[in-house]
Amino acid sequence: MTSRKSFGSDNHAGAHDAVLRMIAASNEGDAHSYGDDPWTQRATDRLRELFGAHGGVYLVFTGTAANILGISLLLRPYEAVICAESAHLNGDECGAMERVLGNKLLPVPSSDGKLTPDLIAGRLTGRGDEHRVQPRAVAITQVTELGTCYTLEELRALGEFCRAEGLRLYMDGARLANAAARLGCGLADLAAHADVLSFGGTKNGAVGVEAVVVMAEDLAGSVPYQRKQQMQLASKMRFLAAQFIGLLEDDVWLQNARHANAMAQRLAAGVRGIPGIELLHAVESNAIFATMDPRDIEPLRREWGFYVLNESGHVVRWMTAFDTSEADVDAFVASVRETALSRV
Amino acid sequence: MTSRKSFGSDNHAGAHDAVLRMIAASNEGDAHSYGDDPWTQRATDRLRELFGAHGGVYLVFTGTAANILGISLLLRPYEAVICAESAHLNGDECGAMERVLGNKLLPVPSSDGKLTPDLIAGRLTGRGDEHRVQPRAVAITQVTELGTCYTLEELRALGEFCRAEGLRLYMDGARLANAAARLGCGLADLAAHADVLSFGGTKNGAVGVEAVVVMAEDLAGSVPYQRKQQMQLASKMRFLAAQFIGLLEDDVWLQNARHANAMAQRLAAGVRGIPGIELLHAVESNAIFATMDPRDIEPLRREWGFYVLNESGHVVRWMTAFDTSEADVDAFVASVRETALSRV
Amino acid sequence: MTSRKSFGSDNHAGAHDAVLRMIAASNEGDAHSYGDDPWTQRATDRLRELFGAHGGVYLVFTGTAANILGISLLLRPYEAVICAESAHLNGDECGAMERVLGNKLLPVPSSDGKLTPDLIAGRLTGRGDEHRVQPRAVAITQVTELGTCYTLEELRALGEFCRAEGLRLYMDGARLANAAARLGCGLADLAAHADVLSFGGTKNGAVGVEAVVVMAEDLAGSVPYQRKQQMQLASKMRFLAAQFIGLLEDDVWLQNARHANAMAQRLAAGVRGIPGIELLHAVESNAIFATMDPRDIEPLRREWGFYVLNESGHVVRWMTAFDTSEADVDAFVASVRETALSRV
Amino acid sequence: MTSRKSFGSDNHAGAHDAVLRMIAASNEGDAHSYGDDPWTQRATDRLRELFGAHGGVYLVFTGTAANILGISLLLRPYEAVICAESAHLNGDECGAMERVLGNKLLPVPSSDGKLTPDLIAGRLTGRGDEHRVQPRAVAITQVTELGTCYTLEELRALGEFCRAEGLRLYMDGARLANAAARLGCGLADLAAHADVLSFGGTKNGAVGVEAVVVMAEDLAGSVPYQRKQQMQLASKMRFLAAQFIGLLEDDVWLQNARHANAMAQRLAAGVRGIPGIELLHAVESNAIFATMDPRDIEPLRREWGFYVLNESGHVVRWMTAFDTSEADVDAFVASVRETALSRV
Repeated sequence: MTSRKSFGSDNHAGAHDAVLRMIAASNEGDAHSYGDDPWTQRATDRLRELFGAHGGVYLVFTGTAANILGISLLLRPYEAVICAESAHLNGDECGAMERVLGNKLLPVPSSDGKLTPDLIAGRLTGRGDEHRVQPRAVAITQVTELGTCYTLEELRALGEFCRAEGLRLYMDGARLANAAARLGCGLADLAAHADVLSFGGTKNGAVGVEAVVVMAEDLAGSVPYQRKQQMQLASKMRFLAAQFIGLLEDDVWLQNARHANAMAQRLAAGVRGIPGIELLHAVESNAIFATMDPRDIEPLRREWGFYVLNESGHVVRWMTAFDTSEADVDAFVASVRETALSRV
Repeated sequence: MTSRKSFGSDNHAGAHDAVLRMIAASNEGDAHSYGDDPWTQRATDRLRELFGAHGGVYLVFTGTAANILGISLLLRPYEAVICAESAHLNGDECGAMERVLGNKLLPVPSSDGKLTPDLIAGRLTGRGDEHRVQPRAVAITQVTELGTCYTLEELRALGEFCRAEGLRLYMDGARLANAAARLGCGLADLAAHADVLSFGGTKNGAVGVEAVVVMAEDLAGSVPYQRKQQMQLASKMRFLAAQFIGLLEDDVWLQNARHANAMAQRLAAGVRGIPGIELLHAVESNAIFATMDPRDIEPLRREWGFYVLNESGHVVRWMTAFDTSEADVDAFVASVRETALSRV
Repeated sequence: MTSRKSFGSDNHAGAHDAVLRMIAASNEGDAHSYGDDPWTQRATDRLRELFGAHGGVYLVFTGTAANILGISLLLRPYEAVICAESAHLNGDECGAMERVLGNKLLPVPSSDGKLTPDLIAGRLTGRGDEHRVQPRAVAITQVTELGTCYTLEELRALGEFCRAEGLRLYMDGARLANAAARLGCGLADLAAHADVLSFGGTKNGAVGVEAVVVMAEDLAGSVPYQRKQQMQLASKMRFLAAQFIGLLEDDVWLQNARHANAMAQRLAAGVRGIPGIELLHAVESNAIFATMDPRDIEPLRREWGFYVLNESGHVVRWMTAFDTSEADVDAFVASVRETALSRV
Repeated sequence: MTSRKSFGSDNHAGAHDAVLRMIAASNEGDAHSYGDDPWTQRATDRLRELFGAHGGVYLVFTGTAANILGISLLLRPYEAVICAESAHLNGDECGAMERVLGNKLLPVPSSDGKLTPDLIAGRLTGRGDEHRVQPRAVAITQVTELGTCYTLEELRALGEFCRAEGLRLYMDGARLANAAARLGCGLADLAAHADVLSFGGTKNGAVGVEAVVVMAEDLAGSVPYQRKQQMQLASKMRFLAAQFIGLLEDDVWLQNARHANAMAQRLAAGVRGIPGIELLHAVESNAIFATMDPRDIEPLRREWGFYVLNESGHVVRWMTAFDTSEADVDAFVASVRETALSRV
């Protein structure tokens, strides 16, 4: 890692000061283990309230684990999950769904990373046929893996479609804060149509913590056992809780997300018009996808360390974080411009 | 939780200052995610060296996860693990072995929590019979769940027996530090006969981190995938690594374990001779098991918060931690004595 | 295999003529696959009626498969099954429970192969504790793997205990016919207290077919999917159904079981008093367990091919089948007597 | 089912006489169970020889089970299988792969049901990346689910590509006999490039039996345990073996396949030129896929009972079987023609 700000991923950033301060503050005296402590009570009470989550809020270690635990509440063994082909759940969790839960995913190609009622409807074949897995849940990501953001209207439409079709709706919210910042709405508004969702702390400035938010009370009974069995029960859970307490106080989480989104907008504005660069998706959170002249990519990547996504070698992803500064963005844009122009 | 020191579990303690300091220190600038960072390199290099682990060292979040990941390296689906009935793996992991790995445990009753070659031999039936799961690994815990500690000679005998029988040896080292402190030996001495083991940070003063130590190089190839699939890959892994760095510098881990062990000895000495109290197992680490007059248990438990283990209601477990002080022990002993004598 | 009648297992016998005749009869013209055919309708209707099974009857290939499918209807992933240590489910299915379902078994030692409310109660620890699998079903075998037979009163007591404790009762009926013959009761009487059970055809004279009998209607919805997913959906299912039709007509199944039981009684009577032979369990079905002088076992086994059960080498199992004749038994008894006496 | 010959599926047919005769013949006296009998020896020896299978041949109950057992020999938990989207394995086994094995499928769209090296290459992304399942096996179906047949040259190219890429090749041979008949080659020629394959008896005239053929000796060690654990070990296995003996004697299997293929050709020729009917794929086995005017489908389907495949309602599948007669085909063709013309 160079000392330059990374645009490779929002998890290249460290932890926000408020998070580390609260971890230190929670390190006073003894506390019961496994979540039976006042810090966990405080964090989950507050999250429960923010989301309107009647089934409670449960802390786990990673985004993959949050997805698996959340979805495990919704399925019987022969039921399947419809998701976008680009979903983290499908392509970036090393088959945790298939191994840990044993359920099948039914991925749908989607150019912008979003599902729609129509795309889902195309996967609802074979219902009632014993030879086929039965579609039972829909998993969306908000904001998506391509940096796009469902509108509240789109979420409402998905929720209504799922209810009408007897499907459960799961929302991967590893970057849900960025959606709230983008839409200017509350977390409860985002969660209103989901049955279960995750709320990511890690990419928002935590050391490492995610929340599984269970909206419906009748889904919650098995969570404690499933969480333990899925190896996600922290013994000193106060240290997970403290991270969320740090993020929630003074709306640090929202400021962090707003800032990261704003830096992405600044970056997008900066590179527009640079020869050979074309943005691929709407920039609606803290990720930018662009095509570049392949010859420009390698020198820039060596210096700045971002990902080159596809096989053809000319699609890149740039991400901003809560601690990306305007100067960082400007320096990166200058470097991109310089590389592109030097070749012309 | 009262403000009194808990004797309920070593995970009621918080984190050691050295751990929190190192977490803060590692929070400088960006770092690559998923372990490709200098802090992880430093922690795992040092652990690798201490254990003589040719297959490498891999960080995970919990002791249950370390056991599952470690054992997943050793088994095919129809192979089984011989363990003591009292093993954490068998009784305290909510069936993670069966669900995540799909392998069967073959538990053996053992009065002191230890396995012996004879006890293992009694479970080696049905080899070559397709109707039976095939015993393939032996899992021991060092120190055991009953607070007893295998001697190096016992470990050697187990290792030789396993090799002769074509069995792999896994060691659950959630409290391995306490064994090193007890035996006055190096970590490599403890690990010498195991194929894979875990080394616990959490109960030793960490916020929450465990290491999976792979002794044989040929077992290591699948670890990265298995760890990710088992939902144990930390994105900001530097914060797991920093905890071990904090514990390893100046042998904090060993001092912590020695101190906890010493406090258990002090506690054992203090309660000896109190009417109605009888120690159940040799006190060889930081746990004490005792029988008490049932009438004394409830008032003491309300005040001090320890576990009552069995159904009959008269076996208790008391644990000391790295931060248990002599004064804590003396106050607790006084309280026990007073309760016992007041009834006489 | 010598041309002598085997006393090794009831599955060494072939198929009853009525079974083969009905297979041939069902081979007329085309039939829809996967059970949508008149033969399957007829067999399952009749079985449903005999058992009083509101949830329906479903055909599968093996006894192991019947157990796994039956139990899969009763459990969530973190729930466990209490069974006798000697249960086929525990020791003779190569870990199918753990791998295919991912659930844990909680085996209980039992000298006669039977469970009792007291034995079950001893395993009901840790309910509500997220670290422990949650006991949710009890699996018994009727008749047991040790040849003993639950009385109707014992079944009633188990059923009442399970209901009172919120436990489901599964009955492995691989040899249920032998229990009906022993007790002189109907199949519905045997099934009255179970939630799900199996009814074995194979050991009763079929080519290879078992029925999963679902007593409660609300458990049946997932059976078709689970059966297919568990690789037990026969495409030409009429040939499974025909076997049960053959066994059910003229109560062939009951005659077969009565006969096998009677031959076991004749065998038991014949060997009583032979020096060195001691029967181990009550002879209540078609299996006899005995201890013998180890020196007698090998010559007899070479000739007659039965199983020697335990490590110490002096416990043998002898089984009779639907086609064991009185002359077979008498010849075997004579051989045992001769061997024993020749050594005296 | 009407008394008319079904064109719905080749598993609507019953069993060939040679199969039933051999089942009856094998029902003489006792036989050891679980395959330790002379009938199983004879069947598997002969199959082993025909395929050149150094790892042996193992009998199971269904095609789904053969696929799962066969593939279970090739994968570690984080490894994946590349297959055509239309593969039975992917769409018609109710998620058995995901549940029983826990492995992920990587389906590839393919217009004719075949994979090619290029199609496979497009799925070989993310190798070495711990976030991704690792492609390790390729599963093809011969003949495919769309009735097409790989040429020997195509098989060779796939085999070479797989070896070069470190991939294992599995072949679903539920209708392998039809491929041998089509190509006029031996079973060993078809198997030459596969690591493991299945050989279907059921659709070829058996009551219900499939063989798992293991080409490489080093893959065979775990088969017995995996077969038992996957609930596919028949106790009276002689009755599975007898079916293959019946099919193999006098090359009944090959005659059956040739006949079914010829009937499909006759059917294809018959419907060519009928207004509104268009064949969709090359007719290279016993399946025909066609588009029809939707108005013609329902009346024909009521009478003849075939499948309508896609959502738009105008793609049908017609299958012939070993016992489809020329008169059956001609009657069906006449019915199709009449329906089509009556509307014009």
